[in-house]
Amino acid sequence: MSTTVSPLAPKSVPDMPALRGVRMATASAGIKYKGRTDVLMMVFDQPAAVAGVFTRSRCPSAPVDFCRQNLSGGVARAVVVNSGNANAFTGKKGREATALTAKSAAAAAGCKESEIFLASTGVIGEPLDATKFAGVLDTLAKDGREDFWYEAAKAIMTTDTYPKVATRTAEIAGVKVTINGIAKGAGMIAPDMATMLSFVATDADIAPAALQGLLSAGVGPSFNSVTVDSDTSTSDTLLLFATGAAAADGQPKIEDANDARLEGFKAALNDLLMNLALQVVRDGEGARKMVAVTVTGAESDAAAKRIALSIANSPLVKTAVAGEDANWGRVVMAVGKSGEMADRDRLAIWFGDVRVAVDGERDPDYSEAATTAVMEQDDIAIRADIGLGNGKATVYTCDLTKEYVAINGDYRS
Amino acid sequence: MSTTVSPLAPKSVPDMPALRGVRMATASAGIKYKGRTDVLMMVFDQPAAVAGVFTRSRCPSAPVDFCRQNLSGGVARAVVVNSGNANAFTGKKGREATALTAKSAAAAAGCKESEIFLASTGVIGEPLDATKFAGVLDTLAKDGREDFWYEAAKAIMTTDTYPKVATRTAEIAGVKVTINGIAKGAGMIAPDMATMLSFVATDADIAPAALQGLLSAGVGPSFNSVTVDSDTSTSDTLLLFATGAAAADGQPKIEDANDARLEGFKAALNDLLMNLALQVVRDGEGARKMVAVTVTGAESDAAAKRIALSIANSPLVKTAVAGEDANWGRVVMAVGKSGEMADRDRLAIWFGDVRVAVDGERDPDYSEAATTAVMEQDDIAIRADIGLGNGKATVYTCDLTKEYVAINGDYRS
Repeated sequence: MSTTVSPLAPKSVPDMPALRGVRMATASAGIKYKGRTDVLMMVFDQPAAVAGVFTRSRCPSAPVDFCRQNLSGGVARAVVVNSGNANAFTGKKGREATALTAKSAAAAAGCKESEIFLASTGVIGEPLDATKFAGVLDTLAKDGREDFWYEAAKAIMTTDTYPKVATRTAEIAGVKVTINGIAKGAGMIAPDMATMLSFVATDADIAPAALQGLLSAGVGPSFNSVTVDSDTSTSDTLLLFATGAAAADGQPKIEDANDARLEGFKAALNDLLMNLALQVVRDGEGARKMVAVTVTGAESDAAAKRIALSIANSPLVKTAVAGEDANWGRVVMAVGKSGEMADRDRLAIWFGDVRVAVDGERDPDYSEAATTAVMEQDDIAIRADIGLGNGKATVYTCDLTKEYVAINGDYRS
Repeated sequence: MSTTVSPLAPKSVPDMPALRGVRMATASAGIKYKGRTDVLMMVFDQPAAVAGVFTRSRCPSAPVDFCRQNLSGGVARAVVVNSGNANAFTGKKGREATALTAKSAAAAAGCKESEIFLASTGVIGEPLDATKFAGVLDTLAKDGREDFWYEAAKAIMTTDTYPKVATRTAEIAGVKVTINGIAKGAGMIAPDMATMLSFVATDADIAPAALQGLLSAGVGPSFNSVTVDSDTSTSDTLLLFATGAAAADGQPKIEDANDARLEGFKAALNDLLMNLALQVVRDGEGARKMVAVTVTGAESDAAAKRIALSIANSPLVKTAVAGEDANWGRVVMAVGKSGEMADRDRLAIWFGDVRVAVDGERDPDYSEAATTAVMEQDDIAIRADIGLGNGKATVYTCDLTKEYVAINGDYRS
């Protein structure tokens, strides 16, 4: 946790409304940090439907293994999250830690262990001493409050400089429902997976399969399109819960993700996922600039995304942005190395609204002053048109600064 | 060109012997730098056999296009190299610049334009004014000296902090032959291609096809196994010339790369290529540590190389090395994200000779003091055993420091 808040942090924090059916409490278990909370427990008063997406790492953490197993049941009663230790690559001890936590949480919430979901974030490879917090889960389960989202977001931070919260409302068949979410970053963030940790809940009444359909679709352009440092975490977990409390207001239960009545809800959910994902990028370790990389005219959407990621993950592009240098030659390099089809002589590049290159060379009207003005902004849009097809994608990243190196040269110790 | 030499630079520079049949001269054309040479001309007294490997970028520079075209002829009479401008993404103007340079060089060397080879390194996207040096090629062709390798290496530097030279000898059918080479780095360096620029020559008498066979095989474990920043350049060019001067000593001409008489030569060439490639890594922008990443026990050699590259290109692994932090959890992360088969519970990791993790968790005998002692060295070996098969690969990289960010946040302007 940094003492300096990212300059890209949202200017205001939304008032997070209570969400019917979810109560939260936090504790300071001293897992790694001093003088802050590091354990969060969410309890659902009634069994909630649950959907999830996880890291595609071949070396996932013990909590990821645990959640994947329980997800098939589709029912959640409680979630326990700790920061300061990822419980990843901890072998048998890691499985013992998740087993102990699940057992204590199930006893505290009065449910089955298969209805518990777990997540851990922090250093990899250190055994997690779950006895540090297993004993407080009883109290947390009793003390949970509905209006505790901001505090919940604080408890799961690691190198984040601000808590990440978002809220949206929608209507399903005329009944108003709410969606609340929290997330944490801020390094080891790369797409093709979920994100570090994010927990989203709604009081809508939606069946698990439909919920999973919504989440799997929504994660593509949001969490799966952000990258801080190209490093995919062992612990990425995004869980979406539906408490169904809106059924009391007459909301008919939705069983199918393609149900037309979900249209407004889907839009609100996708908007919230994008908001949280961008908050993660805006708090990327050492970030001073936010960069939206859009690729158009590629052979396919998938090709466009790979080219956009090649640009967004290039250390030379990211350091140029940090230096406010409109070094579009490095964008050319990143397009060229992506492995996707590109024709140098059809390529055009924009920084903001300024076209800097066209037809395979510098734009005849190139203005250093105009591009420099773009680079001085906090938010920078880079666009590359490949000129070959209709494939399109946008990926979000941040700059690579000396602070990133400083933070990560001495994170563990 | 930096004023501070990399702390990883070789402790001594070899005396570069003359190589029969190759003469070199340099000039200060003021392409970008002040007070240093920036043009190199190599002239072969007799037509030399030539082999080459180039960047796999889809947006190659104009000189790369030019060389690829001439390589099919297999004959070289002169090479012109400039630093300070890559002549990449320069469209029609770029082709005009290579045409003018080739025409002037051919006139100066008294040969065909198809026997000229060109390379440019420096900023991308700026038109290269070849008239700045086309006029001096006459003089350079006349003034060339055989004992000028070190000066030649100096003229092609960009952000390099020291000139990179290497020399080896071998015997072919009892006749002594020499191999000399130069190279430059120091950013936009990633494998799966050649390197930035490297020029190697021998007085051996070897036919072009055999020469190409030797070069293509030799580049795999050397230049194609180094990475400074995962960014593949538009300009990577490695050319190998054979003047054939040793024929005068009775060396029989070799036509086939698999000829048994090439055994000693092949070993010497591979050794020289590895030496130059490692010099490039040791002068990686901002480098303070050299890292050899070895992966064993992968499903195949190709899988091992992809895992090794995933580790070597991870910003979190590289910043940990910079911070002298034996953060092996990040190695686990990089194995997990590589996309290759891995079984967390079979994975073992070493820093130097210290095994830090085994059987999917921290080594029971883990010693923080012992691993820290490894991390304090200039040269660090990281090994990951995947425990699945016999695939093996080694990749070389450097750490990611604040200096890398500083160098690249303001390289262009």
